[in-house]
Amino acid sequence: MNSTADSPLDPDLARRLKRTADGLVPAVAQQYDTGEVLMLGWMDDEALHRTLTTGRCTYWSRSRQEYWVKGDTSGHVQHVKSVALDCDGDTLLVKVDQVGAACHTGDRTCFDADVLLREDT
Amino acid sequence: MNSTADSPLDPDLARRLKRTADGLVPAVAQQYDTGEVLMLGWMDDEALHRTLTTGRCTYWSRSRQEYWVKGDTSGHVQHVKSVALDCDGDTLLVKVDQVGAACHTGDRTCFDADVLLREDT
Repeated sequence: MNSTADSPLDPDLARRLKRTADGLVPAVAQQYDTGEVLMLGWMDDEALHRTLTTGRCTYWSRSRQEYWVKGDTSGHVQHVKSVALDCDGDTLLVKVDQVGAACHTGDRTCFDADVLLREDT
Repeated sequence: MNSTADSPLDPDLARRLKRTADGLVPAVAQQYDTGEVLMLGWMDDEALHRTLTTGRCTYWSRSRQEYWVKGDTSGHVQHVKSVALDCDGDTLLVKVDQVGAACHTGDRTCFDADVLLREDT
């Protein structure tokens, strides 16, 4: 995990980022054209740096404690279209072009299977 | 913060939720018809319970350490349309009808002002 001092990011951006206690920022991945919210991952400074510079979404896996380039094993790559930081500096919105399923279950998004409430409107 | 045992949620749902160390789950708020990602807030079991039962988005404010019904002071209410839990049980997607601006700065979304990267495609 990176602090501002040893961050690979532009110093001004590194200063704007507000990280959790373990140095992470949640990143919402959204399909750029349909607007589907695909998944939420976590990025530290290095993962954000790689996402901004390689054109491929890179996350920090909290369970495996390692970097994870989305699609490297599944082929379900996320090509980065845009990246935005929120008003508080503590959340990222990454618009992507998702190849295939975003979810490891094979669903298009990670939010397809467990709907807790749906209003009839 | 609630553990599974004293949660106001349905016990099966309370067991499925995977919370951070401080008992929270990130909740992505999305405009139900346009697909805009509006903001990310945090919910504990009680905030999720209120969101599911009152039709109004309720968050836990980490900075103020209190519940926060979106729009109670600003009038910028979020009417709940649907709530889904992701495949890992650790993120919520709440589709809402947002009245006015979602962001306290007056922007429609919290991601409008600080774009870090935009591909020309």
